[in-house]
Amino acid sequence: MIKIALLGSTGSIGRQVLSVVRRYPDKFKIITMAAGSNAVLFSEQINEFKPKIACLTNPEKVSQIKEIPLGTQFYYGENALLHAVDSEADIVFDAVMGYAGLKAVKYAIELKKNVALANKETLVAGGSLIMPMAKEAGVNIIPVDSEHSAIFQCLNFNANKQFKNILITASGGALRNVPIEELEKVSANDALMHPNWNMGKKITIDCATMVNKGFEVIEAMWLFNAKRENIKVVVHPESIVHSLVEFDDGAIMAQMGVPSMELPIQLALTYPERLPIENHALNLYGKTLNFSEIDKNRYPCFDVVDRAIKLGGVYPCAISAADERIVELFLQGKIKYTEIAIYLEKVLEKIENISVTFDSLEYVDRLSRIIVDEIYKIRGSL
Amino acid sequence: MIKIALLGSTGSIGRQVLSVVRRYPDKFKIITMAAGSNAVLFSEQINEFKPKIACLTNPEKVSQIKEIPLGTQFYYGENALLHAVDSEADIVFDAVMGYAGLKAVKYAIELKKNVALANKETLVAGGSLIMPMAKEAGVNIIPVDSEHSAIFQCLNFNANKQFKNILITASGGALRNVPIEELEKVSANDALMHPNWNMGKKITIDCATMVNKGFEVIEAMWLFNAKRENIKVVVHPESIVHSLVEFDDGAIMAQMGVPSMELPIQLALTYPERLPIENHALNLYGKTLNFSEIDKNRYPCFDVVDRAIKLGGVYPCAISAADERIVELFLQGKIKYTEIAIYLEKVLEKIENISVTFDSLEYVDRLSRIIVDEIYKIRGSL
Repeated sequence: MIKIALLGSTGSIGRQVLSVVRRYPDKFKIITMAAGSNAVLFSEQINEFKPKIACLTNPEKVSQIKEIPLGTQFYYGENALLHAVDSEADIVFDAVMGYAGLKAVKYAIELKKNVALANKETLVAGGSLIMPMAKEAGVNIIPVDSEHSAIFQCLNFNANKQFKNILITASGGALRNVPIEELEKVSANDALMHPNWNMGKKITIDCATMVNKGFEVIEAMWLFNAKRENIKVVVHPESIVHSLVEFDDGAIMAQMGVPSMELPIQLALTYPERLPIENHALNLYGKTLNFSEIDKNRYPCFDVVDRAIKLGGVYPCAISAADERIVELFLQGKIKYTEIAIYLEKVLEKIENISVTFDSLEYVDRLSRIIVDEIYKIRGSL
Repeated sequence: MIKIALLGSTGSIGRQVLSVVRRYPDKFKIITMAAGSNAVLFSEQINEFKPKIACLTNPEKVSQIKEIPLGTQFYYGENALLHAVDSEADIVFDAVMGYAGLKAVKYAIELKKNVALANKETLVAGGSLIMPMAKEAGVNIIPVDSEHSAIFQCLNFNANKQFKNILITASGGALRNVPIEELEKVSANDALMHPNWNMGKKITIDCATMVNKGFEVIEAMWLFNAKRENIKVVVHPESIVHSLVEFDDGAIMAQMGVPSMELPIQLALTYPERLPIENHALNLYGKTLNFSEIDKNRYPCFDVVDRAIKLGGVYPCAISAADERIVELFLQGKIKYTEIAIYLEKVLEKIENISVTFDSLEYVDRLSRIIVDEIYKIRGSL
């Protein structure tokens, strides 16, 4: 029985973690659950799974929790996530969005708990702090992203295995077939129509811009101890090959599957064992798979993230935090799709490089969002 | 230093084994070498590699061996292959064609030597005898075929790993785009123009007919302890994906690479380690990969082999030996391409099922060739 502390139970990933637990109730037990603001769903979830600890980070929504099961301790507020980590869990499944997810991972490592990682900020912003900590504590940081899970599978679940290159696949996102000159006019709704994957709004926009792919490059660098030049991005519109690893002898191992997070989520909990998932088979017959390079004119944001990678230090943190705010502005219809790259650029220009500590990252995280709002004030709304 | 007994050094596979040894002279040493009839090339090879034992199976060609290096023992004749096996080799690389290759494997297992297997007959005809012997002796039968090597790689070099289905890829061979109604008229030269792979003549014809793919199904059954219903054939004209393995959770692992035997040959000697091979990288950018089911009308031979699999016993041996003779007749221009399936069918009808022993296999091997010649006498030449 694997005991799970699930952080972010009401999000897209969190709900699928619960599906895995429903599928294999003899193998998994939700010990603690934490959510942010979706108190109505969280209320249902805690009454179904009856965790020992339940935590809601947004105190304003507490009144929407109608009933707390007997035997469940309830926490709310800023420290709620840390309460959720401090439990008898074997593994912390971090599916929280934003900087809070990083703090939870830090605490999990301090408590020597393995972490299944679906939070982007942890490695994008804090990789240089988190990975040495995890290594020293002997804690595994297990990838949950479909791409990093695929790489992990190609490495036979050995993140230290030697390889030549990592090839991260990219669908190209919702706007891949929109003529470049028309990208200026696309709405949030257009950018949310992802052809292959059904995910949260923020990440779907990040797929369209390929900001997400830039972040995945950073995560792969940390997870698999890879240099930037040993990571290639391959545009693969069909989202059948979830990523690949090239070895010294020229062999390329690939992981294929239907485009669904169920597999990587379950595998993060069961590897190296693989448990059946019903109706999850990929039928390869009749499939055509295409692979190409990134069109830099279509995806200028990827280059901005790449510049942040080269700058290093707090810049990836800045770009990650800024992107969250910029995407909000885009989703609210306040800025154009093509302005996303421009905003990211400007944030990079305005951030000074300071040494990386958990405190400085938190500062840069907040500062970057403020800078976005300031740029917005100066540029004005549409 | 891995000491190799190389059987079949002058063939396409054997020559590439020697390339591996040339590439890594500090890692590999050719201890014994055996060849069949190409005495001129063999003479060069033994003087380059100076094996401790050199064996030529065709006694009529012995006079073409101009010089035997000092320190090399020379054997010739029918037992020469067995002399080659009986050495201080760590591994027997069996790249011999025909039934003799099976006898050599049997002897290698008796001497408890691991076998890198490029000989088809060993498993196609003798799998039911060889595999239990190998298991009991604790001897590894290491796949060399690109498809089986790919499967082995997808199983992380663990032939006992649990899986759901094996997917063997097939290029479709040289005639895949010839209209079915024109297949009757194709010449040996047409059938030898393989679009992706550069191999021996016999196997290139077997690729065109997909007899080879049927044999590979049999080999996969033995190598990976698979049932027939858990092996699928996927037509993949680009020959980039060399085969795939599907797991219980829906993940499909695939091995990709340039269509070259260098990788599987080297890997059979070095696995789980992977050593660099120069100019062997696959550039995935710009590639389109297609996957489809076998067109049964185009490849009737595949179904005949499948029937032999279902019949079991000595039938796979019969079909394998008969095919060798039938392809000879086709290469000599004596029978039509479309007659290959008809001949194979007729051999299946004429063979009686007798219990499988090494002796009965040898008998069926000879008998099947005789039956082919008898059918030819009755049907007459073109």
